[in-house]
Amino acid sequence: MVILRCWGFMEIERQESILAKNGKKKVEAITSMEVDFAKWYTDIVKKAELIDYSSMRGCMILRPYGYAIWENIQKILDAKLKATGHENVYMPMFIPESLLQKEKDHVEGFAPEVAWVTQGGGEKLEERLCVRPTSETLFCEHYAHIIHSYRDLPKLYNQWCSVVRWEKTTRPFLRSLEFLWQEGHTMHETAEEARNETTKMLNVYADFCEKILAMPVIKGQKTEKEKFSGAEETYSIESLMHDGKALQSGTSHYFGDGFAKAFDIQFTGRDNTLQHPFQTSWGVTTRLIGAIIMVHGDDNGLVLPPKIAPLQVIVVPIASKKPGVLEKAHELRDRLQKAGISVQVDETDNTPGWKFAEHEMKGVPLRLEIGPRDIENNHCIGVRRDDGQKSEIALDHLEDNVSTLLDEIQVALYQRALKRRDTMTYVSTDMESMVRNANEKPGFIKAMWCGDRACEDKIREVAGLTSRNIPFEQEHLADTCICCGRPAKHMVYWGKAY
Amino acid sequence: MVILRCWGFMEIERQESILAKNGKKKVEAITSMEVDFAKWYTDIVKKAELIDYSSMRGCMILRPYGYAIWENIQKILDAKLKATGHENVYMPMFIPESLLQKEKDHVEGFAPEVAWVTQGGGEKLEERLCVRPTSETLFCEHYAHIIHSYRDLPKLYNQWCSVVRWEKTTRPFLRSLEFLWQEGHTMHETAEEARNETTKMLNVYADFCEKILAMPVIKGQKTEKEKFSGAEETYSIESLMHDGKALQSGTSHYFGDGFAKAFDIQFTGRDNTLQHPFQTSWGVTTRLIGAIIMVHGDDNGLVLPPKIAPLQVIVVPIASKKPGVLEKAHELRDRLQKAGISVQVDETDNTPGWKFAEHEMKGVPLRLEIGPRDIENNHCIGVRRDDGQKSEIALDHLEDNVSTLLDEIQVALYQRALKRRDTMTYVSTDMESMVRNANEKPGFIKAMWCGDRACEDKIREVAGLTSRNIPFEQEHLADTCICCGRPAKHMVYWGKAY
Repeated sequence: MVILRCWGFMEIERQESILAKNGKKKVEAITSMEVDFAKWYTDIVKKAELIDYSSMRGCMILRPYGYAIWENIQKILDAKLKATGHENVYMPMFIPESLLQKEKDHVEGFAPEVAWVTQGGGEKLEERLCVRPTSETLFCEHYAHIIHSYRDLPKLYNQWCSVVRWEKTTRPFLRSLEFLWQEGHTMHETAEEARNETTKMLNVYADFCEKILAMPVIKGQKTEKEKFSGAEETYSIESLMHDGKALQSGTSHYFGDGFAKAFDIQFTGRDNTLQHPFQTSWGVTTRLIGAIIMVHGDDNGLVLPPKIAPLQVIVVPIASKKPGVLEKAHELRDRLQKAGISVQVDETDNTPGWKFAEHEMKGVPLRLEIGPRDIENNHCIGVRRDDGQKSEIALDHLEDNVSTLLDEIQVALYQRALKRRDTMTYVSTDMESMVRNANEKPGFIKAMWCGDRACEDKIREVAGLTSRNIPFEQEHLADTCICCGRPAKHMVYWGKAY
Repeated sequence: MVILRCWGFMEIERQESILAKNGKKKVEAITSMEVDFAKWYTDIVKKAELIDYSSMRGCMILRPYGYAIWENIQKILDAKLKATGHENVYMPMFIPESLLQKEKDHVEGFAPEVAWVTQGGGEKLEERLCVRPTSETLFCEHYAHIIHSYRDLPKLYNQWCSVVRWEKTTRPFLRSLEFLWQEGHTMHETAEEARNETTKMLNVYADFCEKILAMPVIKGQKTEKEKFSGAEETYSIESLMHDGKALQSGTSHYFGDGFAKAFDIQFTGRDNTLQHPFQTSWGVTTRLIGAIIMVHGDDNGLVLPPKIAPLQVIVVPIASKKPGVLEKAHELRDRLQKAGISVQVDETDNTPGWKFAEHEMKGVPLRLEIGPRDIENNHCIGVRRDDGQKSEIALDHLEDNVSTLLDEIQVALYQRALKRRDTMTYVSTDMESMVRNANEKPGFIKAMWCGDRACEDKIREVAGLTSRNIPFEQEHLADTCICCGRPAKHMVYWGKAY
């Protein structure tokens, strides 16, 4: 439904759509993802003004537009966490070394990658303080103070904060030395209840990714090798990026009563005996923003699903100096705002072409163009960011029409991502095809596995693939393990991961 | 309008109002503020379940109820910051030592009280990293990247985060090693515009304190001695606690172009010359929660202004096992919830008396009691937390009646605090009376000052008072400085401060 129009100078302005002020294609500033995916990614995070670098290695400055996406994630997810009975708290950012050491597996997993405060107030500290990489230990110490009876259970707590993990190689959003996240930490009377919580929160994450971020995910259990330090079971949602690499997008852990024993958390049960409660934790991070970029973005920049976009609609006045145009643009904005849509008018003195490119770069889901001829015809022109389709939008039903278009974009983005993931998911039943797929076809590989760590290590060595998860939706692809030929226990998603 | 009623067992239950299950007054667990104000304060923060301690010295765990107050502060203030054109960002939590050192006065002020990370990822770092005590340096480094033209100005940024200051002596909310805050950092084309921003944000804080926290404040300028490290001018809002001590409740700083020069931030002006922009910063912290406690609290516990209370109304069913009572309690809750009021029904198996004491401790502004007789009469009993007044509330106009009552409580709390502050504000025109007032009458002392640091130091030495601020609303109390007798420049608020 492309509309062709010839309005003299206005049409010329429109043809500039991808031309910047200096006469160059503004979008040429982005490397094509076919040419260099990594560069395409860093071009977007910089040029869409999501982040800036600072002299602090490996950390990112979240700029207003990048932080606004995180604020939307927070707002929507926080409401879901509260609706499922969770309460927010705030724990100290430091963990004394002795506290971190209370649970053996946990400290072994995290100690190598933490930052240590050793001086404070001009003096050397007697005990090193770790900047929290995660807060299980702090929550457990607190739970020991406040859990005494089964009546005190469950405790369903969550925290929004930043954590630090001393990564050598960092990439904005995907792996950074400091990142923002939420961490849920819950305590339950029974193992069954805790297990249900673990699954429930994984489902909350999966729903959030699919419905809000328009990003399909694979739900499943991590292997023993890949599970969280100190957990009995770890579950994850895995998503597939444009380049065929996998991204672990959220995790949920079942701890059993291991931490509870280490931290001496006990309660008097219904039968009047002393018992240890059962624990979970779960988290998602600013990494989700990296996922949005790499699932939906294209060579013109970011593409944001309407439900998470800080700005859903940009109104670009055409021939804005002609009488009535700016007023009409404001009227559209006011009407849409009243209907609960996030909208702005671009009133800068840039050319329309520059503006188009700018807002394409920033991934604004829908652009509305309004000029003198449009006003005459009582419509405006809508241009979708996801597929570039143009359509006339009758002003009489502006709010409904725009809402419908935004819904369509949301659905289309999910469908496109799902289709791409399906196309890029392969089945292997022998090592040879697995290695070939791994080398030639970036994506997920589904293959059977015996459950042994040795085979997992071998697959990594030979094919460069790691297990993503053992999906809840199992398929029987073969009877035997792809690696050793012994009876298979699970179908596993394998991939190269961020 | 106290209602007396005699319903047999129900009345007995009500008389338990201040009796806990073990037969003791639950409120006896709080030290009276007359007996020991400091102990009263720490009793409240613990027993109202605002905080818990951990093995991390000087840091507090914000428990769900305490954090919910902070979330309300954030929500309301964040909306005000956005409405005044500010955008949120997120900066790294670490500042490399070399970056901190770029502005001389600033580093001198903060270096003695910071925490240093010296080890990361198992290795000694080449450069120490300071855990941010405030983020001027990080903002300036970023501004140098993104400010090039007058068209890039103003930049109006804000950050919600936690900061660390290595305090020796700590008290929950008032002075802690780590605390939560927001820090605004703005850059402007002209000094005048930056000065206006400094005042504007001080006014935003003052409005917030007075209208939302029901806490009167004195707006004014800090003396040279008390200003922020690196600032040209510091403004503050000062409030008076129950014990007559002052609490600095928010600050706003004007930096001139000092940091801009140190960080080489330059822009091309309208006249095509290179210029340095002018800067402000401003912040409020979790300290505001300490202020709420010490301005409104009483010997029964916390008293929360309705506009900041996580829970505005608690419904306590009386004789809840009688048919229809719990259903009616739920009906009240549902109706009030629909009207946008935060409300819960206390359905625990505690006695009504226990419940009354519990919610008094937590400062819930309004309690609604509903029992069989109330239902018969188509009313419920409302009990105000601020003054204990009881009244019958007709159920036919429940929503309006409760809204009106909450508004009245909000106003009454402000008026009471204002009256107390006025009563506890004294005028001194000679040193003798100043010393006597300082020793005998806790509160603010208004006195004239010549403007010299020497007199400020002397007043501290002799009377134990520090200058709170030079209020915008000046009064002419005398012609001469209270200390040296030379001509006075300003009237100053003096006090003992937290």
